[in-house]
Amino acid sequence: MEGERDRRMGVNGKVTELLIRDVRFPTSLEAHGSDAMHKDPDYSAAYVVIKSDGTKHEGHGLTFTVGRGTEIVVSAVKSLSRMVVGCNLADIFGNFAGFWRDLTSESQLRWVGPEKGVIHLATAAVVNALWDLWAKIENKPLWKLLSDMTPEEIVSTIDFRYLSDALTKEEALQILRDSAPHRQERIKKIREVGYPAYTTSCAWLGYSDETLTKLAHEALREGFTRFKVKVGSSVEDDKRRLTVIRNEIGWDNMLMVDANQKWDVQHSIDYMAKLAHFKLAWIEEPTSPDDVLGHLAIKKGLSQYGIGVATGEQCANRVLFKQFLQSGAIDFCQIDAARVGGVNEILSVILMAKKFNVPVCPHGGGVGLCEYVQHLSIFDYICVSGSLENRVIEYVDHLHEHFLNPCVVNNGCYVVPEAPGYSIEMKPNSLAAYEYPDGPVWADLRLKGLIKDT
Amino acid sequence: MEGERDRRMGVNGKVTELLIRDVRFPTSLEAHGSDAMHKDPDYSAAYVVIKSDGTKHEGHGLTFTVGRGTEIVVSAVKSLSRMVVGCNLADIFGNFAGFWRDLTSESQLRWVGPEKGVIHLATAAVVNALWDLWAKIENKPLWKLLSDMTPEEIVSTIDFRYLSDALTKEEALQILRDSAPHRQERIKKIREVGYPAYTTSCAWLGYSDETLTKLAHEALREGFTRFKVKVGSSVEDDKRRLTVIRNEIGWDNMLMVDANQKWDVQHSIDYMAKLAHFKLAWIEEPTSPDDVLGHLAIKKGLSQYGIGVATGEQCANRVLFKQFLQSGAIDFCQIDAARVGGVNEILSVILMAKKFNVPVCPHGGGVGLCEYVQHLSIFDYICVSGSLENRVIEYVDHLHEHFLNPCVVNNGCYVVPEAPGYSIEMKPNSLAAYEYPDGPVWADLRLKGLIKDT
Repeated sequence: MEGERDRRMGVNGKVTELLIRDVRFPTSLEAHGSDAMHKDPDYSAAYVVIKSDGTKHEGHGLTFTVGRGTEIVVSAVKSLSRMVVGCNLADIFGNFAGFWRDLTSESQLRWVGPEKGVIHLATAAVVNALWDLWAKIENKPLWKLLSDMTPEEIVSTIDFRYLSDALTKEEALQILRDSAPHRQERIKKIREVGYPAYTTSCAWLGYSDETLTKLAHEALREGFTRFKVKVGSSVEDDKRRLTVIRNEIGWDNMLMVDANQKWDVQHSIDYMAKLAHFKLAWIEEPTSPDDVLGHLAIKKGLSQYGIGVATGEQCANRVLFKQFLQSGAIDFCQIDAARVGGVNEILSVILMAKKFNVPVCPHGGGVGLCEYVQHLSIFDYICVSGSLENRVIEYVDHLHEHFLNPCVVNNGCYVVPEAPGYSIEMKPNSLAAYEYPDGPVWADLRLKGLIKDT
Repeated sequence: MEGERDRRMGVNGKVTELLIRDVRFPTSLEAHGSDAMHKDPDYSAAYVVIKSDGTKHEGHGLTFTVGRGTEIVVSAVKSLSRMVVGCNLADIFGNFAGFWRDLTSESQLRWVGPEKGVIHLATAAVVNALWDLWAKIENKPLWKLLSDMTPEEIVSTIDFRYLSDALTKEEALQILRDSAPHRQERIKKIREVGYPAYTTSCAWLGYSDETLTKLAHEALREGFTRFKVKVGSSVEDDKRRLTVIRNEIGWDNMLMVDANQKWDVQHSIDYMAKLAHFKLAWIEEPTSPDDVLGHLAIKKGLSQYGIGVATGEQCANRVLFKQFLQSGAIDFCQIDAARVGGVNEILSVILMAKKFNVPVCPHGGGVGLCEYVQHLSIFDYICVSGSLENRVIEYVDHLHEHFLNPCVVNNGCYVVPEAPGYSIEMKPNSLAAYEYPDGPVWADLRLKGLIKDT
């Protein structure tokens, strides 16, 4: 491990440029990704590239979106870029918590958040691009960059504002110090066994029974033992779909369901009670992602059925995660790599989850999210939780072919990524082809009358 | 009162156009509006005009911002406009809850919220412009449009999704029915006495002691008996400023303080304990606006000092308001007319506040917020709360001169507005002069070197 001085000397140079692109994939044409609230997602990204005069490496980062609205996040990234371009990399990485605070607390921009929605999605793309750059400069995958830092260096990247009633800096340090002696053995182990994954690719809401059966069968053959099904159209329809899936995967494999925020609180309890006999590990996003007390009520209502409560992919920031964790409202903490403000904020959530003994099971899917979150869970295992029990990363088998270093899942587990960076850099050809609205893929679809622009 | 059929017949026509402008006032040059988190606000607006082929009236609406970031909200309004232009006004107003649900749940756009931050600020501007248009067509001020509706018509504008564990549609109806027989007497009374106001104009963080004394003295002479002071720079500085103000206003007048989210939870309690002897009615925004459980802890910690807890101006949506109210975390509910998704959502918050017996004290100030919220509090009094006890509307004496029908405060009370609409239409000359970045006011400041654009 290097000291802060050595690292700072390795990252000379200023940020000279921050590029932003609107990249969209026409996934809605095939009902991939359809759920109870998002009928027709076009998996998309506001895609950031950061260049510096101190290194040949580029930092890449994206925030995931589902089509329309990407243009708003692009606008927000442009507004944030003035606070990044011109900064010294050594100043950013040497006081990353301070830089992050400045970025998220800019005295005028914070009004349109604060720290939530469009402006925070944009922050994630920018901040993750900086982490990607840092990891590339250090010639390490992101999880290894983090796992080579001292506990003091890790907490120096975290802004603890608003967290101290749940987790102080000193408590965070202690958690990291307790794990530090075990890091090397855990790195060895996770490289051997990989990180457990579950698949959502079998059971989107728009799929037919035949498709469900076929995809579940294939997933089993590939080694998956954990499966998630989208629910929320109707109890009868969900019973039918869950029967199809349970018939295929049997009763020993893990099965969970996801309602994507469809229901009110009491309705969540009543609805799930009717599905309880399918032996479900969790109900994900039963209601509004902002409703801490609602999730707590649902958790209490469902505990008699052994159904856990999971949420987090649209949890706006660390303050909401804090409340979900400190109140005991969730059984599974589903971090998203680009919904909160990037790696720095995720680290605080992972540490809070450890304190409150809630397993972190990241949100994957979309475009690039699996590539991102594998690093976060692997860091969690090595430096924080030290456990794989009840911990799984979502895996969705879409769009990985567009990445230079796509994630690899073998036999139902993520293989530890070894390429330098955050695994989020897309191929230049893909970026060009899917650029919205004028990339050749979109021009062609328009020409064929398959889409209408608005 | 008219039935729904009559009202719908009165509003024929389609929305033909939705214009959006970026309007900014260079208030940062004089430290107006400075607080613990916003050092240099340029009071601004994303300003919407809706035109229809069925009426000569235009609907005007704005969302308040503080400078940079307005361009992002403008981008979001453009993205929303495709869902408004072309719609029949009768369809919108005849099923306003449904229209509102469609607007806030658009299957792709909701990802960049949902219902929070930039996209929700944009929603507020659009939705409020529709209400302004409706009120103008009916030739009534907004509060009167609402107060002439039946309980059934009022609830028909509200989306109860995610609220039913705290307030059902039936409970909302009952609250409105209980008050209905008293509406006429209350209209008469509020027109006579006005709605109580408090002033924030005396004590921005950037003001000198001399300015504080002078402005408090003037406010007293104008009839104000309720005052708010910005705090949060340091205990010693706040003690000095509060002493200056208490010396001027005495001990019988109402005094509250506002920290604008500066502190962590325990720090809020410790800090405020040191200011308790100033006899403070409330501490406003002690910590993150997302922290329901944090505010609850602060409320418990401060109850021994008789200091209430207030928040809401940056409360993202009705789901967070629901939790603040149902948990008992706040003593004063500070709605903002353009932070949540416009009048429809505000109505649900006012009704929840009634159920949980928390007085509504709206956030004023900025540009246009006082003009807006007077209508909401007057509606609250006439149709919901029936009480003025512990209820006050913030008043800030800035920028009213730019409105066609500015709010009027006499002797410390808002005078009931009688002009048709939502009082939010700005003068054409003001819109043109302050348009950003190319309006003549900004061009002139740039020429004089008083601002640097970024």
